[in-house]
Amino acid sequence: MKQVYFDNAATTPMRDAVIERMADVMRLQYGNASSTHGVGRSAKSLMETSRKTIASFLNVHASEIVFTAGGTEADNLVLRSAVRDLGVTEIITSKLEHHAVLYTVEHLQKQYPITVTYVKVLENGAVDINDLERLLQSSNKKLVSLMHINNEIGNKLDIQKVATLCKANKALFHSDTVQSVGHYDLDLQAIPIDFLAASAHKFHGPKGVGFAFIRKGSGIKASIFGGEQERGYRAGTEAIHNIVGMEEALKLSYANLETERSHILELKTYFIVQLKALSPGMSFNGGCENSEESTYTLINVCLPIAVEKGGMLHFQLDLKGIACSKGSACQSGSNQNSHVLSEILSADNLLKPSVRFSFSSFNSKAEVDYVIEVLREFI
Amino acid sequence: MKQVYFDNAATTPMRDAVIERMADVMRLQYGNASSTHGVGRSAKSLMETSRKTIASFLNVHASEIVFTAGGTEADNLVLRSAVRDLGVTEIITSKLEHHAVLYTVEHLQKQYPITVTYVKVLENGAVDINDLERLLQSSNKKLVSLMHINNEIGNKLDIQKVATLCKANKALFHSDTVQSVGHYDLDLQAIPIDFLAASAHKFHGPKGVGFAFIRKGSGIKASIFGGEQERGYRAGTEAIHNIVGMEEALKLSYANLETERSHILELKTYFIVQLKALSPGMSFNGGCENSEESTYTLINVCLPIAVEKGGMLHFQLDLKGIACSKGSACQSGSNQNSHVLSEILSADNLLKPSVRFSFSSFNSKAEVDYVIEVLREFI
Repeated sequence: MKQVYFDNAATTPMRDAVIERMADVMRLQYGNASSTHGVGRSAKSLMETSRKTIASFLNVHASEIVFTAGGTEADNLVLRSAVRDLGVTEIITSKLEHHAVLYTVEHLQKQYPITVTYVKVLENGAVDINDLERLLQSSNKKLVSLMHINNEIGNKLDIQKVATLCKANKALFHSDTVQSVGHYDLDLQAIPIDFLAASAHKFHGPKGVGFAFIRKGSGIKASIFGGEQERGYRAGTEAIHNIVGMEEALKLSYANLETERSHILELKTYFIVQLKALSPGMSFNGGCENSEESTYTLINVCLPIAVEKGGMLHFQLDLKGIACSKGSACQSGSNQNSHVLSEILSADNLLKPSVRFSFSSFNSKAEVDYVIEVLREFI
Repeated sequence: MKQVYFDNAATTPMRDAVIERMADVMRLQYGNASSTHGVGRSAKSLMETSRKTIASFLNVHASEIVFTAGGTEADNLVLRSAVRDLGVTEIITSKLEHHAVLYTVEHLQKQYPITVTYVKVLENGAVDINDLERLLQSSNKKLVSLMHINNEIGNKLDIQKVATLCKANKALFHSDTVQSVGHYDLDLQAIPIDFLAASAHKFHGPKGVGFAFIRKGSGIKASIFGGEQERGYRAGTEAIHNIVGMEEALKLSYANLETERSHILELKTYFIVQLKALSPGMSFNGGCENSEESTYTLINVCLPIAVEKGGMLHFQLDLKGIACSKGSACQSGSNQNSHVLSEILSADNLLKPSVRFSFSSFNSKAEVDYVIEVLREFI
């Protein structure tokens, strides 16, 4: 059966070169990076090279990169410590954040006497910057947590502007950049951001590894206790093969950024044109139709299909070998509606099926054509 | 240069079959286990098979296995939630535990109004069971955390006895079994333990993955928040390749357990005999000389070498290509003495160099001979 993988915002297939490098590391570099003997030092040296390479892509110091088991852990690490150790008493975030942020904030709110404020979101899914400015006036010690690229609707935050605003208002700024690291250039010398979270499996790297950027001198402390790994930021033997795999994947992502971006953007644009040709009733969720407002890597489309028929859509697409998503993968196991779409869609549109198609450089126009043909049967 | 890797308690070289299986999974199974489409379900099915296999080795239900990024995270998960969610007000542990337990307990003590009691440890490094019985009389809601095999001196806890004692005294029992899973049969239907922590890279599996056993109905809750992975116990996209690698490694460990154990025990016994032949002043730390009291996988020897010369020992062994350890790898980067040896050695012996040599089935008698020859120059 034909297989089309259009769920790259959930996870990406790994690049062969990444797998090969990881297999080599697993074969040859078995040392524990905390061991002081040669075998350990060799592993440590590999890991520190990875750290330097990754740091260089963000234009930060290697010591500002803390390896974690993924983006979720990195979000948790920053948010928890900001409240526990940095005296943050107010978190400003939005209802469109990933659950790694939303649920962590909710949990912290139960545990600590903090205020949580949700910045207004415009109809197109964009954060209302005026409202953010207003919220930043509060006299609390504040942390702002807003994602760079929304994982469901693709909206792109003006991270430079928000970082500058936060800085001007003495608020700390954290961003879940899981959908943007490896897909966008981020110069953290130019962007006065304090923290960010990234995940390797979103840019053709391995699952189970990511990192937090923690700006020097921030005062963040560990949330997982034990050995002195990661300079005390995170205990647990480092997964060298995964870290090196992440480095390799990030290197290849940035080496091929321009070519791959234009290829993917072409697919996205083509897909939108084809969808519109299918029916004038096609509507695009969030800002995803507009490539200035949103990432080039995904679209989230609300299909003009009646409820009765719409309920079977995902099932039918799956039967036809098309992998796509209702919302984020993290909630697709549940029957709940997407919390993001619930915030921004009209009641009418919420009843129609919405689908997120997300792309990588491994995809082709022929795959778009195939999906369009399958959708045609529904519309 | 000759290379002898005698630091298998820090981490083990991976088995080729494990690497191959992981590479296959990375190539072919790129789905996110939380995605509901075919690609995701296929990844999930692989992962659930791993969970079942791992559970079967411990004779528990698959739903009682929670995948984590390693042993440290598993220890943290259990200890934190026991205090936060289960109402534990007293933790009974020992000063010889791994830092993943000790530092987590210290941190919890700062955050919550709990009592921490340290059970007495005998001169040979064994937990004083009479003292434990006495401590268990307290009327607090108690959690006992005692490791099965001590990672530095190899002492083996009578886990069956301790679990039974805890149960009789209505205390929860957690054990860091990082050095024993894959090396000892553990039947958790027979052993009334509540929680345990394990790590794949200690049994020839990948780094960055481990698991917690959490007995059904315990009430443990997540410490990392976000997606609903691991049935809500632990958010973050699961690292399928690492989980499958852990399954494969555990399978091979248990398939070869008897053969490998007798091979390793033979090496250990031979090593002890050779060391004693080198000098009558050789003394063995903890219970490691006695194979009933300690694991077959390591020895920790205090060498009869004067302070001045002893300081260079580790450096010299490293120069000769011998990888071994002062204490646990997690602290070997620091200049501190081992917290374990500090508890049990006399002041005199603490001044002499102690070395932990830890073995796997990949080691040979010829390697022992080589190490003995190198040590001879010192003694």
